Amino acid sequence: MLERVVVIGADTAGMSAASQALRVAERRGRNLEVVALERGHWTSYSACGIPYWVAGTVDGPDALVARTPAEHRENGIDLRMRTEAVAVDLDGRTVEYQDLESGRHGTLPFDHLVLATGAEPVRPDVPGADLPGVHGVETLDDGAALLDRMAEHEPRRAVVVGGGYIGIEMAEAMVVRGLEVTVVDKAAEPMSTLDPDLGRQVHDAMEGMGIVVETETPVEAFEAGDDGAVRAVAAGGRSYDADIVVLGIGVRPTTKLAAAAGLPLGGFGGLRVDDRMRVQGHDGVWAAGDCVESYDRVVKSWAYVPLGTHANKQGRVLGTNLGGGDAAFPGVVRTAISKVCDLEVARTGLREVDAGMAGLAYVTATIESTTRAGYFPGTKPMTIKVLAEDPSGRLLGAQIVGRQGSAKRVDALAIALWNEMTVSDLAMVDLAYAPPFSPVWDPVLIAARKAAEILTGGETASQRSNSSVRDATS
Amino acid sequence: MLERVVVIGADTAGMSAASQALRVAERRGRNLEVVALERGHWTSYSACGIPYWVAGTVDGPDALVARTPAEHRENGIDLRMRTEAVAVDLDGRTVEYQDLESGRHGTLPFDHLVLATGAEPVRPDVPGADLPGVHGVETLDDGAALLDRMAEHEPRRAVVVGGGYIGIEMAEAMVVRGLEVTVVDKAAEPMSTLDPDLGRQVHDAMEGMGIVVETETPVEAFEAGDDGAVRAVAAGGRSYDADIVVLGIGVRPTTKLAAAAGLPLGGFGGLRVDDRMRVQGHDGVWAAGDCVESYDRVVKSWAYVPLGTHANKQGRVLGTNLGGGDAAFPGVVRTAISKVCDLEVARTGLREVDAGMAGLAYVTATIESTTRAGYFPGTKPMTIKVLAEDPSGRLLGAQIVGRQGSAKRVDALAIALWNEMTVSDLAMVDLAYAPPFSPVWDPVLIAARKAAEILTGGETASQRSNSSVRDATS
Repeated sequence: MLERVVVIGADTAGMSAASQALRVAERRGRNLEVVALERGHWTSYSACGIPYWVAGTVDGPDALVARTPAEHRENGIDLRMRTEAVAVDLDGRTVEYQDLESGRHGTLPFDHLVLATGAEPVRPDVPGADLPGVHGVETLDDGAALLDRMAEHEPRRAVVVGGGYIGIEMAEAMVVRGLEVTVVDKAAEPMSTLDPDLGRQVHDAMEGMGIVVETETPVEAFEAGDDGAVRAVAAGGRSYDADIVVLGIGVRPTTKLAAAAGLPLGGFGGLRVDDRMRVQGHDGVWAAGDCVESYDRVVKSWAYVPLGTHANKQGRVLGTNLGGGDAAFPGVVRTAISKVCDLEVARTGLREVDAGMAGLAYVTATIESTTRAGYFPGTKPMTIKVLAEDPSGRLLGAQIVGRQGSAKRVDALAIALWNEMTVSDLAMVDLAYAPPFSPVWDPVLIAARKAAEILTGGETASQRSNSSVRDATS
Repeated sequence: MLERVVVIGADTAGMSAASQALRVAERRGRNLEVVALERGHWTSYSACGIPYWVAGTVDGPDALVARTPAEHRENGIDLRMRTEAVAVDLDGRTVEYQDLESGRHGTLPFDHLVLATGAEPVRPDVPGADLPGVHGVETLDDGAALLDRMAEHEPRRAVVVGGGYIGIEMAEAMVVRGLEVTVVDKAAEPMSTLDPDLGRQVHDAMEGMGIVVETETPVEAFEAGDDGAVRAVAAGGRSYDADIVVLGIGVRPTTKLAAAAGLPLGGFGGLRVDDRMRVQGHDGVWAAGDCVESYDRVVKSWAYVPLGTHANKQGRVLGTNLGGGDAAFPGVVRTAISKVCDLEVARTGLREVDAGMAGLAYVTATIESTTRAGYFPGTKPMTIKVLAEDPSGRLLGAQIVGRQGSAKRVDALAIALWNEMTVSDLAMVDLAYAPPFSPVWDPVLIAARKAAEILTGGETASQRSNSSVRDATS
């Protein structure tokens, strides 16, 4: 029996799902036909690479494409580019679509539906947000538009709105391109995915790079110049000159189509799926990637964490199950990593505010250490902060801010967290040591040890109860 | 009540133990007096840094010293340098010592004895092993002797005996110093701490650096020149010209004193301790560092793994317990890391030969990936091989060979192994992704996924049963 799968959205999640479904189905002798609809011009690309393309650090846009439409077609996917799904009839099992080139409409019946509609940048709800020169950077088309504008207008001053991952990466891109850069952020510190004490380190480091960072500065309006394009950003009661503006204030799930079809959305506006990536309560309807919410394993509740790495895993899990295999997406622990010039930033698990909201008692420990042995050339300073549950000692979260070679250590912490290790157990794990790679106590061990000492009273009582301590041990 | 602790050996393990014991005892109001005996000229130094000192990459010897004798004395330790313990009377609770400067003997009573006598380099049992120009590199004094000899004789050709961690690090040092370098190793491939297939990669990379690597070449003799110093190494039926020879064939525990006192040694000649670092069956007698054997958590048996990172942890655990606190050393999983020039090497857990000896059925998966996104500047190739138990899927071991930025990923694998994760669970863990740090599937995830696929039959049957597969996915 031939079963037809219709995939809406041909980027990471959708195409991972489609490819894996065909692979697994073939192995099991199942007969799947996959039709994929993509309203844009590109398939399967690294959106995370766009800031580096804008910076000129990497080539683009083709180099950011993992698989072209032609490659997907060779793999047996009936891929229809510039084709937008406009309605889903769940009872009738059909998708209505429009060919964006010809304007023609059509209808496709499906046995299985895969929603991989992604996310769209949040635009601030203030005057002038649609002015020429105000750019989001979510898609390759966005990146191309920004680069075109910069080539044409040769801007000198950039304002980046938002100091999160995209914001700091775009600030780096603009610095690399030689612009004067101001980041305006409504939060008390940039990188609000970190606790404010570590955000402060990022703030100071960015200013050391010549980036102006204006915190507690919400955007009020984008102001147009005589040519009708943006020329300033009004924020926090002041005006910041801008020849170009980049929006880095996050994305939200693209789920209007799903909502109109009656599918269940969560509190963040994303689709709710089970661990097989089936839309809850709807047989034969699947979803993955930036349009779904993810289960946070630490606080045991839903979250919205639109990242390429989750989209890849979810797409593959979806495809395995759709093809007749058996796979589960186990959820997330909010691991993330980024950099601004040579400053690296990473986190996993809970921040203090998250632990507080979850009603968890905790202690924190913050340590300064180095990426290599202190005497080894190229050693760089790094800070790790860990949160541990009080009194159990369970690792709840970790944050890293440091120079080159620091941040990928978050993986060790993420796996420890994933396994619900205590900080005292983590402090004694057999991590790799040699002088070019680590101090003899790896910074991860030092941080865990410090938290364990606070919990067991090895440190003075005043350092308990959620206060931070610093340790110069290296 | 004043209790006297006598520590034999004032390097990493002994001084970590002494410092921690005093710290913990003070906190608990216990009254400890610590006397430490050191036969050498140095305390608390990084032996792992010696190859980099010889290379001229780092300063030495002072820069390699973490704490000087004066600093230890300021911390309240009665440290006696150039003082060798020559006998221990366990019944009488005394240590007999000799002042190596004056030649005078003396006796010290103890309540607690800490053995931290370290290790000594294995010298090949062949003619000429004590010739001038044949150097071990275990202690700072060894490093100074080698550097003095090189300054005086300006050698052109170095032969390094042994292709393990010390061997490849010393090969790098000699390359950096501009010598022609030959490594002779009796094994089939260098880095026998890896499986031979990955050892082969190290072999090829070293030859690409201009290092001659002679495998299956056991040393038969060191031959003297007219000046009485070494001028060639006879090995594998051939003769290799050598102006200087470095021994890198491992170390063995320095436990003659302990054995003479009647303390229990294991199969590797190291002291047997419990997880508090008490010598088994002997109240008030403790040991840590390179003179003890360690418990291997994966195969659940004793091993000899003399590494600075274990010496530090064990010393600290010992000191905590001796001071009246409570700590345990949980054992090791044989994590290790090194590099030769820009080639990085790491392992954790079991090799194929270890799994075979332990009677474990397993599969292997070997994948090629990159340290960063494939399109990102500075991305480097890396290989990961994982072993997983068949059919349970439990991760048994991992090995990494790659260029800069590869090997520290072994920490993530070590923590997964420590927690007895399955490869299918590991493949879905939330590791950090951004293009400057990783491909969208981190190489650790790709390796785990491949092993999981082999176990579940996602790969063809011929790839099971201990055969390796390669995956070009990145």
